[in-house]
Amino acid sequence: MNYFSSNFKLGILGGGQLGKMLLNDTRKFDIYTCVLDSSNEAPCKIASNEFHLGDLMNYDAVYNFGKQVDVLTIEIENVNVDALEALEKEGVKVYPASKTLRTIQNKATQKLFYVDNNLPTAPFSRFAYTSEINEAINHGGLTMPFVWKCSQFGYDGTGVKIVKTLQDLEGLPNVECIAETLVPFKNELAVIVVRTASGDIKTFPVVEMEFHPEANQVEYVICPARIPKEVAKKATEIALKTSKAFNHIGLLAVEMFQTQNDDILINEVAPRPHNSGHQTIEASYTSQFEQHLRAILDLPLGRTDNKVGGVMVNLVGAEGYTGNVVYKNIETIMEMDGVTPHIYGKKQTRPFRKMGHVTIVNENLNEARRIAEAVKKSIKVISE
Amino acid sequence: MNYFSSNFKLGILGGGQLGKMLLNDTRKFDIYTCVLDSSNEAPCKIASNEFHLGDLMNYDAVYNFGKQVDVLTIEIENVNVDALEALEKEGVKVYPASKTLRTIQNKATQKLFYVDNNLPTAPFSRFAYTSEINEAINHGGLTMPFVWKCSQFGYDGTGVKIVKTLQDLEGLPNVECIAETLVPFKNELAVIVVRTASGDIKTFPVVEMEFHPEANQVEYVICPARIPKEVAKKATEIALKTSKAFNHIGLLAVEMFQTQNDDILINEVAPRPHNSGHQTIEASYTSQFEQHLRAILDLPLGRTDNKVGGVMVNLVGAEGYTGNVVYKNIETIMEMDGVTPHIYGKKQTRPFRKMGHVTIVNENLNEARRIAEAVKKSIKVISE
Repeated sequence: MNYFSSNFKLGILGGGQLGKMLLNDTRKFDIYTCVLDSSNEAPCKIASNEFHLGDLMNYDAVYNFGKQVDVLTIEIENVNVDALEALEKEGVKVYPASKTLRTIQNKATQKLFYVDNNLPTAPFSRFAYTSEINEAINHGGLTMPFVWKCSQFGYDGTGVKIVKTLQDLEGLPNVECIAETLVPFKNELAVIVVRTASGDIKTFPVVEMEFHPEANQVEYVICPARIPKEVAKKATEIALKTSKAFNHIGLLAVEMFQTQNDDILINEVAPRPHNSGHQTIEASYTSQFEQHLRAILDLPLGRTDNKVGGVMVNLVGAEGYTGNVVYKNIETIMEMDGVTPHIYGKKQTRPFRKMGHVTIVNENLNEARRIAEAVKKSIKVISE
Repeated sequence: MNYFSSNFKLGILGGGQLGKMLLNDTRKFDIYTCVLDSSNEAPCKIASNEFHLGDLMNYDAVYNFGKQVDVLTIEIENVNVDALEALEKEGVKVYPASKTLRTIQNKATQKLFYVDNNLPTAPFSRFAYTSEINEAINHGGLTMPFVWKCSQFGYDGTGVKIVKTLQDLEGLPNVECIAETLVPFKNELAVIVVRTASGDIKTFPVVEMEFHPEANQVEYVICPARIPKEVAKKATEIALKTSKAFNHIGLLAVEMFQTQNDDILINEVAPRPHNSGHQTIEASYTSQFEQHLRAILDLPLGRTDNKVGGVMVNLVGAEGYTGNVVYKNIETIMEMDGVTPHIYGKKQTRPFRKMGHVTIVNENLNEARRIAEAVKKSIKVISE
C-alpha cells in the first residue's frame, strides 16, 4: 500500500504527549491520521487529520473508531483489548497485537511471560489480593524488603511501593498484585527495540536512567549509557529476545536492571514510544517516533545510532504547585548549548505531573550531562 | 511575555510547506498559532490552532487577521505590505518589517538597497518596461548575454530568463524589470542569518547549491559548503552585514554567487525560512524553523553548527506528469542510510512543482552527497 498518496488511514489510540510527538512524523510523511481520546483538551486535538472523542477503555468506542482505519496503534497501554481483538479478526492491522497488550497490561501475566520465555527477571510471587501478603510473610513464604506492584494499570510509579516493614503494607489497595524481590542494582537501563511486520529488527543504543528518589519518575535519561561494552551487549541481546518472544511489531521499550554482578533483569516493557527514547528526536539519526511509524507501516527502518550524545530531563510539576502552568526560567535554559524544551501543552500543572521534557545534545556526552544538571537546577514547572 | 503559558498568539501569513515545518516547532513549544491562507487545502490547515481563509494580497484580509495576534510573521513574501504597515503602527510586532518586505518584493528596489548599503551584487540596469531593453541594446547601453528578471513577484525561477540573443526577449512580459550582468560563477552559496529583536545574531554554516539546469530550481543543498575557509568567511560576513542593513528580525536567507575570482555577490534574499536551510532539521543543532521562532519571540538563539553533514534534495514533480501524486520508490530511498523524506502534502503534482524534499545526513559529508545522488536517481514524483 502506498501510504504517502492514497486513502490510507492510521489510527492512534490516545491523544497525549506521545501521540503528539508521533504526529510530527505522520505530518512529515503526510500520513492521514485519526486520533481517539477521551479529553477535548488532548495535545493531539490539533495536528491529527481527525480527532474523535471517546473512552479508550470502552469496547464500542475503540471498535467503532478502529473500523475506520487501516492500521491501528496506541500511545498508551490502557485501552480496550477485546475491541482490538475483534478488529484484528476483521482485518485491521493492530500494532501492538491485542495478545501482547493483554499480557503486558497485567504485571503478573507479564512476569510469567518472561519466565515462560526464559527471559531474566527478578523473582516474584503472585497474589490475588494484597491482603494475602501478610499471611505469606507470617508463614515465611515471603521476606521483606520486596517491591509491591499492583498487577493492573500501573503507570509511571503509581501502583508500585517498596515494602520494608509491615506498616508499609497499610493503606495499599486490596487488589491483584505481585511481590518482587528487591534487586540491589547499579543502574536502570533501557533498550528500545523496533521491529517491522516483515521482521526487520533494530535496537537503539542502551540508555541509562536516573530516577527521582521520591516520585519514582525518570529524572535523567543518558544516551548512550556509560556502561561496559559487554553489559550493553547483554542488555541489547535480552531486549531483542524480548521483542521476538512477543513477535512484536513497532517499538518495544525494555526497561532493565543492571545488578551488582552485572546481570541484566527485565523490569517491565512498554510496547510503544517511550520516555526513555525522547532524546532520539535530537540525538539519533532516526527518532523513536519516526521509527515506530516506519515499523508499523512496514517501511524500511532508519539508522538507530546517535549523531551526538543525548541527555533527557523530564519536566514535571514542582511540589506545592497546582493550577495554570508557568515554565519558570525557560529562557535561561534556552541560552544553554544544545538545549531543546518540549512543552506538551497541558494547561494545568500538579506535583510530579509530566508537563514536558528537555533534551540536551552535545558531541561530548559528559558535557551534555553537565548542562542537563544546570537545566534541572534552573527550570521549574510552577503555577501562576 | 511568557509565550509558553499565556494567551499569546502568533500569526503566520501563508499556510504552505514552510509554515507546515514551522508549526512543528510551535507545537514543540506549545505556542498558540493562527494561520492565514487562501487555500482550504493548505498544508497548515491542521497543526495550527486556528486556520483562517483569506487572500494574502488583500488589505482587509491581512489587516483583520493581524489584529488578532501579538506577533505576525510570514512564510511567503507575497503579502499585502500596506496592511502590515498599518498593523505595525497599531503595535503588532511584524517580522519581517513591512519596510523590509517592500524593499525585497521588488527586485529592482532590492538591488538598489544593496548598492546603497555598499553590499556587493552584480551590476544591473533597471527598466520600466521590458520593451525598453531592445532600445538599450541598440544604443550600446546594454550588451548580451544578461539575466532578465521581472521586478515583481519573481519566485523560484519564474520571472527569470537568461538572454543571449534578441530572440530570447520575445514572449517576455512587458513589465518592470532589470537586466543583470551574467556572472560566471564557481558556486551558488547561501547563508542563513538569524537575528533577534534584542540584536543577538548568528549564522548557519555556508551552504552550496546545485541548480537544475532547466527548471532553475535547487537540486542539491550541501551543508557545509565545500569551499575554502576564507571564502566561507567572506560570504558569512556579507550575509551578516545584509541582515544588519535591513535591521532584520528573524531569519534572512542570503543567496550569493562565488565568482571565478572568489568574489562574493549577493543574488537575492528571503526574509523567512528558506529552501537552502531545510537540512538544518536533521543536520543542525537547531533547525532554521526553531531558530526563526526563537528570533521573532526574542528568545535566546540556539547553536547553528552541524551535528553531522547534511545534503538536501528537492522533490519536484517529474516532467510529463500532472495529477494525483505518487512518490515512486520512496521505500527504496528510505532503506538508504540517514535518509528522511519530507512530504508536503500537496495532492496534485505537475512538472517542477515542489512536492517535498529529502534530507541525507552522515558523519561524512561526501558519503551523504553520494547517497543523495542515489536518492535522486531512485525517487520520482509522478502521477497515478
